[in-house]
Amino acid sequence: MTFGLCTIDTGPAVLSQHGVAPLVRLGVTTPTVRATLSDWDTLCDLLEDADRSGKLAKLSTPDTDVTFLPPLADPPAIYCAGANYHDHAREMGTDPPQATFHFLVSPASLTGHRSTVHRPEGCQRLDWEVELAIVIGRPASAIHPAAAADHIAGYTVANDLSARDHVRASGLGIDWLRHKSYAGFTPLGPAIVPRRLVPDATDLELTLTVNGQVKQHSNTNQMISGVGDQVAALSRIAPLRPGDVVLTGTPAGTAAAHGHYLHPGDVVVAEITGIGRLENRIA
Amino acid sequence: MTFGLCTIDTGPAVLSQHGVAPLVRLGVTTPTVRATLSDWDTLCDLLEDADRSGKLAKLSTPDTDVTFLPPLADPPAIYCAGANYHDHAREMGTDPPQATFHFLVSPASLTGHRSTVHRPEGCQRLDWEVELAIVIGRPASAIHPAAAADHIAGYTVANDLSARDHVRASGLGIDWLRHKSYAGFTPLGPAIVPRRLVPDATDLELTLTVNGQVKQHSNTNQMISGVGDQVAALSRIAPLRPGDVVLTGTPAGTAAAHGHYLHPGDVVVAEITGIGRLENRIA
Repeated sequence: MTFGLCTIDTGPAVLSQHGVAPLVRLGVTTPTVRATLSDWDTLCDLLEDADRSGKLAKLSTPDTDVTFLPPLADPPAIYCAGANYHDHAREMGTDPPQATFHFLVSPASLTGHRSTVHRPEGCQRLDWEVELAIVIGRPASAIHPAAAADHIAGYTVANDLSARDHVRASGLGIDWLRHKSYAGFTPLGPAIVPRRLVPDATDLELTLTVNGQVKQHSNTNQMISGVGDQVAALSRIAPLRPGDVVLTGTPAGTAAAHGHYLHPGDVVVAEITGIGRLENRIA
Repeated sequence: MTFGLCTIDTGPAVLSQHGVAPLVRLGVTTPTVRATLSDWDTLCDLLEDADRSGKLAKLSTPDTDVTFLPPLADPPAIYCAGANYHDHAREMGTDPPQATFHFLVSPASLTGHRSTVHRPEGCQRLDWEVELAIVIGRPASAIHPAAAADHIAGYTVANDLSARDHVRASGLGIDWLRHKSYAGFTPLGPAIVPRRLVPDATDLELTLTVNGQVKQHSNTNQMISGVGDQVAALSRIAPLRPGDVVLTGTPAGTAAAHGHYLHPGDVVVAEITGIGRLENRIA
């Protein structure tokens, strides 16, 4: 049994194989999923009990009946690993960085499961990138990689959409903002699966399909800088805070390598075994 | 008469030539300065009345009696213009970008007026950058430059501190995160001066001193991409939200050009006429 915390149009909820149950129906009153991070373990205990007792199944409705928002609407920051799988660095013609490398995307680019993403004006080369996303649960400053797990609330799926038309700005190198931060460019979800339900985040299968055709297929064991190393490295730059999201990089198989980009009408599905299946349509 | 909204250790407050008065003493109950943006004009009216009636003077204590935090602790995003003054682009050996260019810094890098900034481990080349900071007051999506003013709540002073040791990451160009986002690397404040009190944001004098010695001295009329153009360009990428901060670029005179960087014990003061004076000490 596994479950995750999601945000639907009516508020925070839990997603499981039974469907979706609003937290308020389980007796948990909270304005946001981010607010639950301060007492995350208690919430996970309660949800495990509700599942065992059959209460979760009884209170759940089919997930097709709800509208998903990003599981966290308001992360303090979204950090993204650049060129963190050797095969993706090669296909982009980029040397992998010598140290763990992250850039930021704007939280205004977030969108949820099953939302429609509009291809921005002037973007002809819209690309996909399936990524394991870490959600920080406890503040972390200058921590050791071995201690990173204590600071991770859980994991979700991200699709780091990219406008390959705008990778570089003349004069200043990579333009991460125009490349990655348009409205809707960061589909996230559908839900945050608690870390305790993920036996090994360094061995998870990632797949991305476009209209059912497999484009990316790899495993998180192919990362150059692993989950613990990334959290530790970031915590040495700026203090990590509950609700921060870390996108851990994407494997090979992006459109940039093959020249077939996303077009209006396409359906893109990013899936990570045991974490979730994130579907979006392009308009 | 001018005043600005600041955040001190006890909560939101107003800073004027009379000193600092907590908003709660003026009858305004609000948890954060960001929350006041939803009814910003009413708040500004109230503060103007309080000033005219002498109430503000009566309720204020000397600003040396309080501890300043960043005026906004939780901006949804901080956007920064790159190479936006010709003379700074030249001194950095960078071509100015052909279009308005922004990168993001982490809100976790914010600090307030008179705070001590710790030079991070491994950073020997700590640099300063005085910048006019825009605070967004109303949501903005794909707006015209001429309409930008309607979406600006006010202005404050930023010092975009930079670790010139970490400008570039091997393989991926400019490493904006390690370059600009260490804890304490974004001093902001002391206060947000409402736009209605700033007759012309395109003609403001900027000065930065280190231990009293002038290092940067210019005017916002030297920007390549102006205030309105920057807000409009950003609003075409991701929707701008109340509380977003835009750092508008820095003029020539940075340490990178002259080789004399900041050292522990240095006092750096960033000042913009009519907006504020932001002082920090390096440790």
